[in-house]
Amino acid sequence: MASNSRTLRIEWGDCDPAGIVFHPRYFAMFDHSTTLLIERALGLSKHQLQEAHPFTGYPIVESRARFLTPTRYGDEVTIESRLVAVRRSSFDLTHRLSRGGDLAAEAFETRVWVVSDATRPSGLRAQAIPKHIVERLTAD
Amino acid sequence: MASNSRTLRIEWGDCDPAGIVFHPRYFAMFDHSTTLLIERALGLSKHQLQEAHPFTGYPIVESRARFLTPTRYGDEVTIESRLVAVRRSSFDLTHRLSRGGDLAAEAFETRVWVVSDATRPSGLRAQAIPKHIVERLTAD
Amino acid sequence: MASNSRTLRIEWGDCDPAGIVFHPRYFAMFDHSTTLLIERALGLSKHQLQEAHPFTGYPIVESRARFLTPTRYGDEVTIESRLVAVRRSSFDLTHRLSRGGDLAAEAFETRVWVVSDATRPSGLRAQAIPKHIVERLTAD
Amino acid sequence: MASNSRTLRIEWGDCDPAGIVFHPRYFAMFDHSTTLLIERALGLSKHQLQEAHPFTGYPIVESRARFLTPTRYGDEVTIESRLVAVRRSSFDLTHRLSRGGDLAAEAFETRVWVVSDATRPSGLRAQAIPKHIVERLTAD
Repeated sequence: MASNSRTLRIEWGDCDPAGIVFHPRYFAMFDHSTTLLIERALGLSKHQLQEAHPFTGYPIVESRARFLTPTRYGDEVTIESRLVAVRRSSFDLTHRLSRGGDLAAEAFETRVWVVSDATRPSGLRAQAIPKHIVERLTAD
Repeated sequence: MASNSRTLRIEWGDCDPAGIVFHPRYFAMFDHSTTLLIERALGLSKHQLQEAHPFTGYPIVESRARFLTPTRYGDEVTIESRLVAVRRSSFDLTHRLSRGGDLAAEAFETRVWVVSDATRPSGLRAQAIPKHIVERLTAD
Repeated sequence: MASNSRTLRIEWGDCDPAGIVFHPRYFAMFDHSTTLLIERALGLSKHQLQEAHPFTGYPIVESRARFLTPTRYGDEVTIESRLVAVRRSSFDLTHRLSRGGDLAAEAFETRVWVVSDATRPSGLRAQAIPKHIVERLTAD
Repeated sequence: MASNSRTLRIEWGDCDPAGIVFHPRYFAMFDHSTTLLIERALGLSKHQLQEAHPFTGYPIVESRARFLTPTRYGDEVTIESRLVAVRRSSFDLTHRLSRGGDLAAEAFETRVWVVSDATRPSGLRAQAIPKHIVERLTAD
């Protein structure tokens, strides 16, 4: 299964008046980690995917997160992301954010492979993930 | 139990290149709804709370969310927030974001009442919620 | 000239560890005020504009801002926005953010009316603002 | 004079429905570049500065920016930041953001060295920058 690890530094602007990361910023960090994981597994950016396939994106449909200990401006943190399931038109990932080896936050998310569909109120429709993309995502 | 409802408009800057709300922005909206719910129940701002009590904040420790249908720039949405459990030093809330009466996203979150504690690596320590605050939060 | 005024409340998540608004958040507030001003003057949302005209947006090309005194979580602030010049394909606005009648921040911005143009590296091209739109924007 | 250069990648969540960077995100990027420049020049983080000096921060008081060409999700950009003036209690910086060697955005900002002062409505007071800090900031 595809995975990705990256190290980043908590910014001043990520933090709130209590001096700790404002939790929506964690979700933005995890979102970028998901993008990087998929790009890395496919060797294609989201834009290249959009040119090559009838594909609009992989919006999140479910998320669960635990925040164990706060992180602060200046902390260097590592986010380890891992694809854990790939189904017909959706997939699951986990993200583990740690500082100095200690887990600080973790998230589980489900995303759906979608195409535009003007006939739907949402403007989007789930679509089977192309076979060769599934193969790349699930390769060891 | 305390509750709160507010209506807001999805902003251009809340949305991503797919034209839909970037999901971390939902968590920022829910966070503000939690703040408003607690202020309204207590009749005190977070700053007034900090002056009146040995209290630092109520950081989120757990979150679960479902995103059912996307919302877009210009949509008017309603967020209904509800306290659903109050324990010794933590409490749970739900948020339901709807557009035109249809549920678009919902979240469940657990928060902990904390005080500063320089002896802890996190700098924070869970603290029993003062009795009169529990009474206000759980009043009908 | 078109103008707009709105009152909003500084959110916890708008503020940084010094307890004051993280200044990029002011620019997001001003951006939304610009959108509201133009919608109000035209009676059309940005999406309706896009359906009615060969129009992609009005990105900012220049900005100047002064931050006179900080605002904080819980402050109620008013943003007064005003169109101050309309040219062939660009226009200028000012925003004044005040708290309790005292000016806290102000900005001047220039925006350009653009259409998509795949032949340009930027993907965008400045376009004359349609005459009836200029008339609405500049009406007394 | 102190300077700093860093390369970063435009994220999906930095961009708006037009597919280009939402300009407040540029100010967040520049803010982080300023923090990195000062840390690098002093060899101290903002927190270490706060422990060593009666110092609260260096909030921005003036900003001017030009946005020449949009950048998009996936673009690799370089931000070159440079201190251009240091006065008694304030200093100026410039940031130049380029992609593939072409300037895409630039900003000029003035910041003030402040300490907390509960007697002021702003809660802050400008303070002379300590001499050894001026020396480090202005060293060649």
